[in-house]
Amino acid sequence: MPIQLTRYLPILTWGRDYNRTTLSSDLLAAVIVTIMLIPQSLAYALLAGLPPEAGLYASIAPIILYAIFGTSRALAVGPVAVVSLMTAAALGTIAEQGTMGYAAAALVLAGLSGAILLGMGLFRLGFVANFLSHPVIAGFITASGMIIAASQLKHILGINAEGHNLLDLLISLIKHLPETNWITAVIGVSAAGFLFWVRKGLKPTLKRAGVGMRVADVTTKAGPVAVVVLSTFAVWILGLTEYGVKIVGEVPQSLPPLTLPIFSPDLVGKLLLPAFLISIIGFVESISVAQTLAAKKRQRIDPDQELIGLGAANVAASLTGGFPVTGGFSRSVVNFDAGAETPAAGAFTAIGLAIAAVALTPLIFFLPKATLAATIIVAVLSLVDFSILKRSWTYSKADFAAVLATILLTLSVGVEAGVSAGVGLSILLHLYKSSRPHIAEVGLVHGTEHFRNVLRHKVKTDPKVVTLRVDESLYFANARFLEDSIQDRVAAAPDVQHVILQCTAINEIDLSALESLEAINKRLDEMGVKLHLSEVKGPVMDRLETSHFLDDLTGQVFLTQYEAAHVALERCQKIKSG
Amino acid sequence: MPIQLTRYLPILTWGRDYNRTTLSSDLLAAVIVTIMLIPQSLAYALLAGLPPEAGLYASIAPIILYAIFGTSRALAVGPVAVVSLMTAAALGTIAEQGTMGYAAAALVLAGLSGAILLGMGLFRLGFVANFLSHPVIAGFITASGMIIAASQLKHILGINAEGHNLLDLLISLIKHLPETNWITAVIGVSAAGFLFWVRKGLKPTLKRAGVGMRVADVTTKAGPVAVVVLSTFAVWILGLTEYGVKIVGEVPQSLPPLTLPIFSPDLVGKLLLPAFLISIIGFVESISVAQTLAAKKRQRIDPDQELIGLGAANVAASLTGGFPVTGGFSRSVVNFDAGAETPAAGAFTAIGLAIAAVALTPLIFFLPKATLAATIIVAVLSLVDFSILKRSWTYSKADFAAVLATILLTLSVGVEAGVSAGVGLSILLHLYKSSRPHIAEVGLVHGTEHFRNVLRHKVKTDPKVVTLRVDESLYFANARFLEDSIQDRVAAAPDVQHVILQCTAINEIDLSALESLEAINKRLDEMGVKLHLSEVKGPVMDRLETSHFLDDLTGQVFLTQYEAAHVALERCQKIKSG
Repeated sequence: MPIQLTRYLPILTWGRDYNRTTLSSDLLAAVIVTIMLIPQSLAYALLAGLPPEAGLYASIAPIILYAIFGTSRALAVGPVAVVSLMTAAALGTIAEQGTMGYAAAALVLAGLSGAILLGMGLFRLGFVANFLSHPVIAGFITASGMIIAASQLKHILGINAEGHNLLDLLISLIKHLPETNWITAVIGVSAAGFLFWVRKGLKPTLKRAGVGMRVADVTTKAGPVAVVVLSTFAVWILGLTEYGVKIVGEVPQSLPPLTLPIFSPDLVGKLLLPAFLISIIGFVESISVAQTLAAKKRQRIDPDQELIGLGAANVAASLTGGFPVTGGFSRSVVNFDAGAETPAAGAFTAIGLAIAAVALTPLIFFLPKATLAATIIVAVLSLVDFSILKRSWTYSKADFAAVLATILLTLSVGVEAGVSAGVGLSILLHLYKSSRPHIAEVGLVHGTEHFRNVLRHKVKTDPKVVTLRVDESLYFANARFLEDSIQDRVAAAPDVQHVILQCTAINEIDLSALESLEAINKRLDEMGVKLHLSEVKGPVMDRLETSHFLDDLTGQVFLTQYEAAHVALERCQKIKSG
Repeated sequence: MPIQLTRYLPILTWGRDYNRTTLSSDLLAAVIVTIMLIPQSLAYALLAGLPPEAGLYASIAPIILYAIFGTSRALAVGPVAVVSLMTAAALGTIAEQGTMGYAAAALVLAGLSGAILLGMGLFRLGFVANFLSHPVIAGFITASGMIIAASQLKHILGINAEGHNLLDLLISLIKHLPETNWITAVIGVSAAGFLFWVRKGLKPTLKRAGVGMRVADVTTKAGPVAVVVLSTFAVWILGLTEYGVKIVGEVPQSLPPLTLPIFSPDLVGKLLLPAFLISIIGFVESISVAQTLAAKKRQRIDPDQELIGLGAANVAASLTGGFPVTGGFSRSVVNFDAGAETPAAGAFTAIGLAIAAVALTPLIFFLPKATLAATIIVAVLSLVDFSILKRSWTYSKADFAAVLATILLTLSVGVEAGVSAGVGLSILLHLYKSSRPHIAEVGLVHGTEHFRNVLRHKVKTDPKVVTLRVDESLYFANARFLEDSIQDRVAAAPDVQHVILQCTAINEIDLSALESLEAINKRLDEMGVKLHLSEVKGPVMDRLETSHFLDDLTGQVFLTQYEAAHVALERCQKIKSG
């Protein structure tokens, strides 16, 4: 029982060893992460189409819940770019941005997402996330980054533009381009320029000036805060709102409110698929960050428990005025680099953000939306990376096809279509590949007991004995291919008297394949040919023994291919001499 | 060019060797099959919800087109039970049975099905059919047989009943049971009883009486003809139509009419999925019959050319007032047993049926529908076979789950839902299995160079060197599982300095798995552990060499596991003594 509890409540493990040193490390990390998160939370709320405070709320309760249930010591949970984009795409089909219905649907989306993650965690279904291949994720994130950047251009230019895919967005942007507010554009472009410089130019400068690596890093990460402060101040002093610069405006000074999502069947029906995709994408993003950071300290991540941690975080977001959240890459890395030792650092961050929500919100009244858009654009452009196309093209055409489909569909149709197409295509291509396995005819390498492909090596064969090695597990998708291949080879070689299947690479034989083997055995028998198996693996053999196949087999099962070929040849000679 | 032509026109191959002997064999087979097909064609038209002549038409032109394009020498193409049921289910959503729209939709369905089959044949997509696993097909045919039998009970009882799944059908039957026409019921039940006796009792009796096996077989197959003649005669003589016995009635005396299916976008949209499922199920049924018969004479079947043959047959059905057709099991076996040598036998059968359509249709005016229903019921009950449940339960729980889902959904929802669920579930379960591959820790068997599972054998291991053998190809669905497993094992064994992956069972490493290997390599490096590979297959190694992985690998790639373990141990000792 106590073991069970620590499994579901990792806090009981690390909480026991908590001491003054870990406390001070965690506190320092929390201060740094809090400073970084304030502009980021506001910006991702804007991206999700929600009021800025929703971003703060989504960073407070979820982070605490994750601290209790999550297994990563450094993961920082909250709104992240791709999930915020997916949230906007999902909610866009339900209600207009800025309406009550939109915010209410965001709570339902977070609640559903939390329920899905919790369910997957409790039933240990984390493997579902494995069907998102790495290249598909890379392609999806690249395409999402482009859409996010394009979606923020309207704030930079101070115009209206709509669309959940790149094409719609760009058309809409071009149509409204004449309405550009030039003062907004100046703020937006200079903010973006400054942030780019901070990222690309400041760090090397600091390093050359002899500033320590870590300090340089943290200073760089504080760039967005500087931009926020400067541009807010400029708008306030110069009274730029009168020139049409759009600002964040009044943000309620309050702790996260208690909210109750209303799961109407209609809304649930519409949001279930998006919530599922958000959960999976969020989980995949989060777990890879957590794994990377844990490995650096030889710590363990339990994927199923991570689902529970993230699920609890999303339920918390749903109950406290937030929207879907997950473990973010940049904030987690900052947290880790700043020295966070335990999830308590996350809890301290939550306290910092809560203070910000209560005390600092009046200060951001004049914060221009263009600045937030600039921070988003600079953050997501680092996600855009087309190298996956080249990498996959060189390594595997099937992976390339899946990436290309993901990118093209995400850009042209939308995030849900893109990720679904990528997953569907990679599964189909995988099945296709294994449905036409490599079947090599093998022969004996002279002077050894090894058998090798007749096409690649100089080997000894006999027209009466054909040995085939199937380089794939046998299952329904390749069972008929096996039947066809063997029938073809035997029909083409009239002298054959024995067919040996070398089973070294066969890890499984399912019922379809078993029936195909039975059919092959029977058909070969009708042609007067015997079927033998060699080098069958233990678990496969155990399984075969539960069936009638071995009784009906016209030939034998041999432990080694050498023995099989030897016995088969001997029999042929006996028939000749007999 | 001539080679190409014979590939697409198998008739050019067998036509060249056609002579008097083959002609007489084919003619005899054609006569027997024609006699068998007349009642069967009428019955399957009834099952599909179409007028009886549609069954005859669907057996004439399609059989000729298949004779030109198909590769099987004995396959008999025409309406079959399961496809007729699927046709009724698909058309039931479009129009009322008996309306013009219903018959017109049947032409479109056959046309679409033909186009899909032709397309799959030309683009060599026959492998798609492989995703229907044997157990799923077995479950689907069993459940379909039950639905077909239940759907014919209304004709036996002379009542109305509707429904495309067993539940709806049974409820409807029970509701209308009080309306039973007793005279119809007497005809139906006695016809069914007689046919059962012919099947189960007559053959043994004939054999005991010294009649040859083949004659006994043919006599048995002629049972339905006898029932048709007897019951038609009875209805006519006794004037039973006045007592409400439903009869086939007037059937136009004509050759198959030329018909033009109208592919309206709306209709195509609604019928595309059913047409696809009908094509796949029909193809699978047809090819397995063709393979079985071809094997008996060491002949070859080309699955892609079979698609073209069946596609052409369906297009022909669409253009001559028919409905979807495929190669049928019972008629092909009769054709084969009756001595058919070439597809010309099919063409002669078509002539026989054309004569029947022109000359014999007035004779079946008084044929009671109950008789046709009885022939269907007796024919399909042989399809109902629950042994697949027991077989799959014993052999593989995953296959059992797929069969059970197929049967339950086919019975409770309908044919399309059933077959889709079966295919979907078997793919998911296959992916699930390969997403959690067997990873064995192996050690050296004393006195040999063999490495075996530490849990199954008494082997030598060293705490500093861990060797893992993954019994599965590495791809996206198990890439993360591999990362987790290795990280877990290493985190649990603090002394480890070398991890060796023995790659004997790895037939493929896709890009996701490559990236996971890179991550594993990097994480192990950060823990101070070296990663080695051993016994990598040629094609996998070729692929790896196109990437940077081998450059970044902290350890080495060894040709044999023995060498790998030896070198790793040596290095550990050097560090110790150094």
